[in-house]
Amino acid sequence: MPTIDPLRIVAKEMKFLTGNIRKLLGSGHPSLDRAAKYYTQAEGKHIRPLIVLLMSRATSLCPKAPERQQATIQASSAINTSISPVSVLSDYNPSAGAENEPVSAYPDILPSQRRLAEITELIHTASLLHDDVIDHSESRRGAPSANLEFGNKMAVLAGDFLLGRASVALARLRHAEVIELLATVIANLVEGEFMQLKNTARDEANPQWSEEALTYYLKKTYLKTASLISKSCRAAALLGGADAATVDAAYNYGRNLGLAFQLVDDMLDYTRSEKELGKPAGADLELGLATAPLLFAWKTNPELGALVGRKFSQPGDVELARELVMKSDGIEQTRALAQDYAEKAIDAIKDFPASEAKDGLIEMAVKTLNRKK
Amino acid sequence: MPTIDPLRIVAKEMKFLTGNIRKLLGSGHPSLDRAAKYYTQAEGKHIRPLIVLLMSRATSLCPKAPERQQATIQASSAINTSISPVSVLSDYNPSAGAENEPVSAYPDILPSQRRLAEITELIHTASLLHDDVIDHSESRRGAPSANLEFGNKMAVLAGDFLLGRASVALARLRHAEVIELLATVIANLVEGEFMQLKNTARDEANPQWSEEALTYYLKKTYLKTASLISKSCRAAALLGGADAATVDAAYNYGRNLGLAFQLVDDMLDYTRSEKELGKPAGADLELGLATAPLLFAWKTNPELGALVGRKFSQPGDVELARELVMKSDGIEQTRALAQDYAEKAIDAIKDFPASEAKDGLIEMAVKTLNRKK
Repeated sequence: MPTIDPLRIVAKEMKFLTGNIRKLLGSGHPSLDRAAKYYTQAEGKHIRPLIVLLMSRATSLCPKAPERQQATIQASSAINTSISPVSVLSDYNPSAGAENEPVSAYPDILPSQRRLAEITELIHTASLLHDDVIDHSESRRGAPSANLEFGNKMAVLAGDFLLGRASVALARLRHAEVIELLATVIANLVEGEFMQLKNTARDEANPQWSEEALTYYLKKTYLKTASLISKSCRAAALLGGADAATVDAAYNYGRNLGLAFQLVDDMLDYTRSEKELGKPAGADLELGLATAPLLFAWKTNPELGALVGRKFSQPGDVELARELVMKSDGIEQTRALAQDYAEKAIDAIKDFPASEAKDGLIEMAVKTLNRKK
Repeated sequence: MPTIDPLRIVAKEMKFLTGNIRKLLGSGHPSLDRAAKYYTQAEGKHIRPLIVLLMSRATSLCPKAPERQQATIQASSAINTSISPVSVLSDYNPSAGAENEPVSAYPDILPSQRRLAEITELIHTASLLHDDVIDHSESRRGAPSANLEFGNKMAVLAGDFLLGRASVALARLRHAEVIELLATVIANLVEGEFMQLKNTARDEANPQWSEEALTYYLKKTYLKTASLISKSCRAAALLGGADAATVDAAYNYGRNLGLAFQLVDDMLDYTRSEKELGKPAGADLELGLATAPLLFAWKTNPELGALVGRKFSQPGDVELARELVMKSDGIEQTRALAQDYAEKAIDAIKDFPASEAKDGLIEMAVKTLNRKK
């Protein structure tokens, strides 16, 4: 069986991704541009837009929703021209938004779906900017973090700016359900980050291992990672006019893949070296975070409870916690759970018609498990 | 002529404003709720929702847009129920959004317009939270600032959370043009804050007074203050189905009122004492900001250029700058410009049919000039 390269399947669209994102971020203020575009310069993996584009292509072959399921909403037709000119006081007014014309006669990726891929990456990047301020991160993808490079002020502003531009681009898609889905993601990301911050305070009150700690971690992980992937997969299917079963399948693929992705990420934080990871290894423990490998290790090592409760803050805590995790089956159990979710992701799209894009989505799930950084 | 009380005209709607906003912000996480709702507890003046409600009522008597001007956009009818249940992983899913049913037979304020008033206040409050982090503010409305009370982390998160919930509520209005208008406001607010931060760096290169400094200041003021007021006035008219001339008039009222409001704010920063203002007087100079009174004073006091260039950072700069402003006609010119904008605001709605709400809007413009804090 030949190797599948998911990136090749949507290479044409991915080629223009960064350029289009940078166009969405033009402000006429060089130093705002610099901060806003900073995380788009690095060799990011663009996992989220890649999944959105593959899902768009794969669902283009699925059954369509009957017309009667479509409702209409009010909108002035003169949206881009109806704002009266304001002499000195300019507004952001880029060229018209993406339109729903297929790029070829073959049912394929719509301009609105390409725009969705860009919006998804913008929202993700905005959350990185604010998370790095909140976590006092010093590096990201092997380079200084934006907060270190430009200061906290500019990093907060740049994140807000990305959210603002993402919201405008989203509004221009003119699809009510898609707009609401992605707006909900923004609220979810914050709630997830908040749950991560609070995690330890909650554990402090109850230093006994319980199933609840894992439930809390999974909910946090859904909100902080899987919500964006799952809802943008659902949005891709909706923009393509897919039927309800396909839309749900797309969502379930994204949800399970997102959970698998974060579990592997948390595992790699223990198993990979700083050089391989592009960010400090063991960063989670240093931040006081108890992720899946530790939560599993805690079950058989009750002494970890006290360390969790004090956020690994005493000298030697981080080293001891890491040692106990590595000696336990925490890594193994995390990998097993990630595999479980990856299989569920693949299972979710089993009814999609055979296509290169469907194979690409399956390969993304396999790659998620096998990635080394 | 009897005294007009704008607040009384929309008292019924204003009464539920804070309660409704707090409902929009419920998260199930007590400490996130506390930070998110912090600035909604204080005795804020709720100027923006008040204007939105008055505008909604005043424009309800204006000519309506013909049906043919309405375009339709795609939306699934099953928006709130089509998301598949996620066992552990809950989504924010409040009761259905505002609907466009008038509350009485008399054309009046629609539920969607009331919701718009709440969204406007949410966006304003989110920008306060982030601005206070960026400016290291220590107090707001006579109480400790949110960043001081909860820390920068929680203030950034709470601001993001407000933006996220505002975006969801906005999406649920199901009005494409209104969604785009308010999304643009979010981007404008950031650009305005950025221009304010950069202001001095730019002046440093050119310590000579020029008309350009005032133009830059007015553009910053539009983006940071008038954009939200003007676009939410436009949105209120759109939600009510007003015709194009009314929609433009609403926008022009908001734009001019917003500019007048900020000019008076900048003037009060010089003329009022700390006790009267609820925040430190002269805060702008301490922050290195050259606002209208100083820009006018600079014209006749070239020595202010050097102080502007170094952001009033040397000992005695703030005191000297304040003294030169108070001796000059800077305050007077600022007041004259504010009056000019307030008159333009009143003129913009001169063709609205006579009504209590129209009188309320006129009174808001008059009050803006006369306010003492």
